[in-house]
Amino acid sequence: MVSIAVLDTTLRDGAQREGISLSVKDKLRIAQKLDELGVTYIEGGWPGSNPKDAEFFALAQRMDWQHSKVAAFGSTRKAGVPVERDLNVQALLAAGTPVTVIVAKSSRMHVTDVLGTRLEENLAMIRDTVSYLKQAGREVLLDAEHFFDGYKLDAEYTLCAVQVAAEAGADCVVLCDTNGGTLPSEMMRIIAAVRERYPQVALGIHCHNDTGMADACTLLAVEAGVSHIQGTINGYGERCGNANLCTIIPNLQLKMGYDVLAANRLALLTDVSRTVSEIANLRPDEHAPYVGSSAFAHKAGLHVSALLKARDSYQHAEPELVGNRMRVLVSELSGRGNITHKLEELSLGFGLNDAEVRAITERVKSLESQGFQFEGADGSFEILVRRARPGYQPSFHVLDFTVLVEKRADTAMLAEAMVKVQVDGKVMHTAAEGLGPVHALDKALRKALLPFYPELDRIQLTDYKVRILDEQSATAAQTRVLVDASDGERSWTTVGSSVNIIEASFQALLDSLELPLLRRASQQETGVAMGSDVQGREVR
Amino acid sequence: MVSIAVLDTTLRDGAQREGISLSVKDKLRIAQKLDELGVTYIEGGWPGSNPKDAEFFALAQRMDWQHSKVAAFGSTRKAGVPVERDLNVQALLAAGTPVTVIVAKSSRMHVTDVLGTRLEENLAMIRDTVSYLKQAGREVLLDAEHFFDGYKLDAEYTLCAVQVAAEAGADCVVLCDTNGGTLPSEMMRIIAAVRERYPQVALGIHCHNDTGMADACTLLAVEAGVSHIQGTINGYGERCGNANLCTIIPNLQLKMGYDVLAANRLALLTDVSRTVSEIANLRPDEHAPYVGSSAFAHKAGLHVSALLKARDSYQHAEPELVGNRMRVLVSELSGRGNITHKLEELSLGFGLNDAEVRAITERVKSLESQGFQFEGADGSFEILVRRARPGYQPSFHVLDFTVLVEKRADTAMLAEAMVKVQVDGKVMHTAAEGLGPVHALDKALRKALLPFYPELDRIQLTDYKVRILDEQSATAAQTRVLVDASDGERSWTTVGSSVNIIEASFQALLDSLELPLLRRASQQETGVAMGSDVQGREVR
Repeated sequence: MVSIAVLDTTLRDGAQREGISLSVKDKLRIAQKLDELGVTYIEGGWPGSNPKDAEFFALAQRMDWQHSKVAAFGSTRKAGVPVERDLNVQALLAAGTPVTVIVAKSSRMHVTDVLGTRLEENLAMIRDTVSYLKQAGREVLLDAEHFFDGYKLDAEYTLCAVQVAAEAGADCVVLCDTNGGTLPSEMMRIIAAVRERYPQVALGIHCHNDTGMADACTLLAVEAGVSHIQGTINGYGERCGNANLCTIIPNLQLKMGYDVLAANRLALLTDVSRTVSEIANLRPDEHAPYVGSSAFAHKAGLHVSALLKARDSYQHAEPELVGNRMRVLVSELSGRGNITHKLEELSLGFGLNDAEVRAITERVKSLESQGFQFEGADGSFEILVRRARPGYQPSFHVLDFTVLVEKRADTAMLAEAMVKVQVDGKVMHTAAEGLGPVHALDKALRKALLPFYPELDRIQLTDYKVRILDEQSATAAQTRVLVDASDGERSWTTVGSSVNIIEASFQALLDSLELPLLRRASQQETGVAMGSDVQGREVR
Repeated sequence: MVSIAVLDTTLRDGAQREGISLSVKDKLRIAQKLDELGVTYIEGGWPGSNPKDAEFFALAQRMDWQHSKVAAFGSTRKAGVPVERDLNVQALLAAGTPVTVIVAKSSRMHVTDVLGTRLEENLAMIRDTVSYLKQAGREVLLDAEHFFDGYKLDAEYTLCAVQVAAEAGADCVVLCDTNGGTLPSEMMRIIAAVRERYPQVALGIHCHNDTGMADACTLLAVEAGVSHIQGTINGYGERCGNANLCTIIPNLQLKMGYDVLAANRLALLTDVSRTVSEIANLRPDEHAPYVGSSAFAHKAGLHVSALLKARDSYQHAEPELVGNRMRVLVSELSGRGNITHKLEELSLGFGLNDAEVRAITERVKSLESQGFQFEGADGSFEILVRRARPGYQPSFHVLDFTVLVEKRADTAMLAEAMVKVQVDGKVMHTAAEGLGPVHALDKALRKALLPFYPELDRIQLTDYKVRILDEQSATAAQTRVLVDASDGERSWTTVGSSVNIIEASFQALLDSLELPLLRRASQQETGVAMGSDVQGREVR
């Protein structure tokens, strides 16, 4: 089996994405995840370009890396500066990594017009920098910038850069599609030509996604003889992003028979993808191949019935291999079969008899006809199941609530809420202000409940979505609200629906707060150890 | 130049995406956009599967399509049912479209295991349905479902399905990668084999993105001889989506030399992409190739300085060709050019001097930084321009408003609003009840304004959308509201933004009511004939 080396550049190229800003601590956390996953190289940053990256390498030197080698990125020496006096090259050495990545110009036009130096001097810069770092005992990867544009403009000069780097001892010459404009057939043709000219040089590929082709071009480059790939988790990167390792690695390993990650590591991929998006504070792409939460979700009635007949017929891979799972979306197209499947998936730790399943199915149907939708709201579905159980005790009971939104000339908006709640036989009447009406309701409700359920302090609302269902018109339309909540370990989504947006929001809010209380009561009742939740992770 | 036909299936396959729910009106608006763009076919839905789609086709028949043909989707006749008695086939005919798309099984395993019928009967189903619809005078496209999996399992049977469809008169046989598992090299190999076997059959390609390869596979299929492509705007579709026309079309047309859209239509692509995401109430993908707002945005210091030296060196295409624009993130260079363009587009019937344009640009920038967005809200942009004119007289002035939402035990929700408005020197203080808070505000406001502006009686609010901008702040998040209004002839969209959803809604509501009043005042003032609006259509 042919082995493919993977360089992850999430911490350098990925961090260029508009909106990403990673602290040194964030970078270390991501690097640890990548080490667990077992990529060959973790490119940590450009120590010569900013102090934050230099600090990362200082801390990285003291850590114990299990599977990956840390790499520092920098450029060749400057034109006319001896390599041993080039500050950028010295910063690379000071980073103390076993691997250095050197970016070099390989396009004639970029050497003369952008860098403003002579073509021969550029080759000397490559030769000097590679030799110097090799002599210092480093593994050296050379990123040939604008390789494909350069090749189309003047193939001979571009190939010279490859040859000079290889002769100077570069361990791999990485062909970079810097502006992301190369299409698959061009990619195949050019890689094949380079491969033929230099059959002994280890080649790598680094693609950007400006034409939507970064992942496909990377796979095709591997088939054409490249043995080292570069990309980022979730394809993060500036403009349209970099090649997406979460797509490329499973394709190479599961479908094309290459040896990429060590055994069993691939199943960490979904977790790595979501953790990195969490740390980067970006919403995960639900529709991402392999790792998205919708990647193996089935909705259309046609598909679901086929799926139950032949599981493989609508799934191109086993989701478990990448740590993801199949989901059957509960929707009005579906019936008891889906509900049963959903119940198994939730593994609530108790069984339901036929009559109970039937009752739940009816309840779901009735709520769906009122505008509720459970496909994105597992939390509300779970609470519905828990409420249907014999002996269900509500954690609290809302008697009344009032919301007031007011704007007087030349004053800021005001939003206030009052809530009357019965808890444990007592009536609590509370009030709070908020930025908006739902925020005020949330605060008033917590004021009433916290004395009884101090654990609610740990519950954070993490997302809030509103959808107008267009069956009726405009401001009189049915509204659906989704709320995401988390206790820091688990998260859940709940739904509300009403013609009144405040009522819909309040319904979702109530479910999001009652669910953790019911889960806890059920654990205490069934004697489940308090130390772990259903997935066996630590809860407190 | 080789021509490529484009079938857009945003309204059918695209609508399968988790979270999308399109009303009939939404579908018609999207179809009109697609017609402007000039795709060859607009697949409107599956008339046999649900009444909403049947209604769409009933309305579509009465519309005047400029560039595109509307297509209805359905399946072959059922096993054992004569085609003239098959309800689904009859619904297809009743849809009254010039084009019908028939989905057929082409994989042996799916015929026997999923459909549960004999292999010969499946071929007869294809033959009968295609012939029947051809005899009825329809253009017939045959979607061969699971073609690639079927081919790998039993190429001969799969090819039989292609042959039978072609012999029965299908205008195009579309090879579908239904579960999205086919990789680029397989795609090339299989298309080449089919092409070689049936050099005369017109072939199409329909890809799903489960391995992240839908766009690349579509391009490679075209290079291998396919002349019809299917996909959706923004790649919407279930699981990981469908092939993305916003990526594929510019690649084919700008880089590969195919003839896809009529001249000048490609520049509408960015607008179509964003309008569709707006209608679907999905946040646009900022990083999408070609059409994303970050697609031509340059951030890294290295790149920007290179960019200034050689504009093409970091941009693979001219953003204007797809209606997008370059952004340099370090210093906002954007603004005036776009504003001027937008003003021309609105043809308001009056000119603006440089200082006015500059002032409007500043105002737009400031509002955008507060979460307003004018791309989907021409109405609010127009009103902003009208308010910037010398001698602008507000039609009314809101002094105060109060909203009360209340729920008491065992009573229905109550929503009430009070509004204090100054109109024509008088202060009107009104109150009204509504189904929800925004509905109540709308009613109270109209009560105050109708005595002065009886023409407001004709203004209907037709749609209301809410988008949460920074989800992570949950119920304390910035909210953007879009309101659509219509006077029965013209319609307009307005926008509001605030952390308080009621305030955001109220802002959009005010603009939606003031705009028609300002338009009318301006017509009277400039003596424009009352019988026609600026686009020459009849107003009253």
